[in-house]
Amino acid sequence: MGKVKVCAFAVSLDGFGAGPSQSLENPLGVRGTELHNWFFKTKTFQKMHGGGDGGVEDVDNAFAERSFDNIGAWIMGRNMFGPIRGHWPNNKWRGWWGENPPYHTPVFVLTHHKREPLEMDGGTTFYFVTDGIESALKKAKDAAKGKDIRVGGGVQVIREYLKAGLIDELHLVYSPIFLGSGENLLSGIDMPKLGFSVIEKAYTKDAMHVVLSKNK
Amino acid sequence: MGKVKVCAFAVSLDGFGAGPSQSLENPLGVRGTELHNWFFKTKTFQKMHGGGDGGVEDVDNAFAERSFDNIGAWIMGRNMFGPIRGHWPNNKWRGWWGENPPYHTPVFVLTHHKREPLEMDGGTTFYFVTDGIESALKKAKDAAKGKDIRVGGGVQVIREYLKAGLIDELHLVYSPIFLGSGENLLSGIDMPKLGFSVIEKAYTKDAMHVVLSKNK
Repeated sequence: MGKVKVCAFAVSLDGFGAGPSQSLENPLGVRGTELHNWFFKTKTFQKMHGGGDGGVEDVDNAFAERSFDNIGAWIMGRNMFGPIRGHWPNNKWRGWWGENPPYHTPVFVLTHHKREPLEMDGGTTFYFVTDGIESALKKAKDAAKGKDIRVGGGVQVIREYLKAGLIDELHLVYSPIFLGSGENLLSGIDMPKLGFSVIEKAYTKDAMHVVLSKNK
Repeated sequence: MGKVKVCAFAVSLDGFGAGPSQSLENPLGVRGTELHNWFFKTKTFQKMHGGGDGGVEDVDNAFAERSFDNIGAWIMGRNMFGPIRGHWPNNKWRGWWGENPPYHTPVFVLTHHKREPLEMDGGTTFYFVTDGIESALKKAKDAAKGKDIRVGGGVQVIREYLKAGLIDELHLVYSPIFLGSGENLLSGIDMPKLGFSVIEKAYTKDAMHVVLSKNK
């Protein structure tokens, strides 16, 4: 039975998983890209984004690589899929990632607005789920066929799954920056009370990695 | 002119500078001591607490040592001085640290309740300040004679000085633990907006050190 996981999710030291004022130009919010300095330089990222064989193979890369291992389905919020709010005006928006998105699995997009599934190159199909997080998780489990489910984000989606007790494991990447405002990942969420403890930690010059898992 | 500094202040990854339920037995709150694992092993800590010449001399120790450099006066909250709340029943409580506290400077203790100064061994004198944080800072500056002022804590005292714009520099030590509740250091405080940016960072197996300073 697969786990429900959050992987490679970057957070600022003051707790923000995205900066303020998200927009088409700043999908991660103002200064949000600074959260991901640990990731951009890695071989995994470079390979995913046309950098060929470039990129470093360090501890950051090992975590980046692992974050795609054994994933059978993804779940993400609508804002992670695109900048459009409200009803879909048409079917033109096909995600931030071009015709071959880096998922290569079914991806369940949480939205209040129905839309037909969208089949992309490379094995990614976006399914739009309008009946809530538990329904999306059930669909993802069926699709994953025993592999893990990765809850990709954004912050609000992870918070909802956490508070509902539906996450088994989180790999968080603390970046040495302070955003000051934006979307706070854990504000008001008591991780020890939810049963989580740190089972793994690692440090690089760009990040502190921690893996939290539920005590069974 | 000396700086007003917070040094070697440990914070959990979910933002807490002390655990919940502080008491005589748990002056740092439940699990609060885990925040300081980076510090206990250091030569600086061992020397201060009777460990002789033991302790490691690593990056953590270098930061610990620096945190006592060039300090001319300390400011701390009453809860950092002791567990007594309300009026002083008598003068018996002389701090957590025995007859020779690790300060060796004047220490200004913020309280609502008057008490005579308390002279200890080794150059530490505790002065009890009842007319607010700005008055305490003025007294500390006079006493420090051009050296730096260290605002020791606890969390609420640092928050008050931060929000009043009176801190020049902070060295925070992020420990890879999640406390879940307790006293949150930066909740609702926008460090970039206050003018702070990260000017130094370092990583050890027990902590991520960051130094924030005001852009001048």
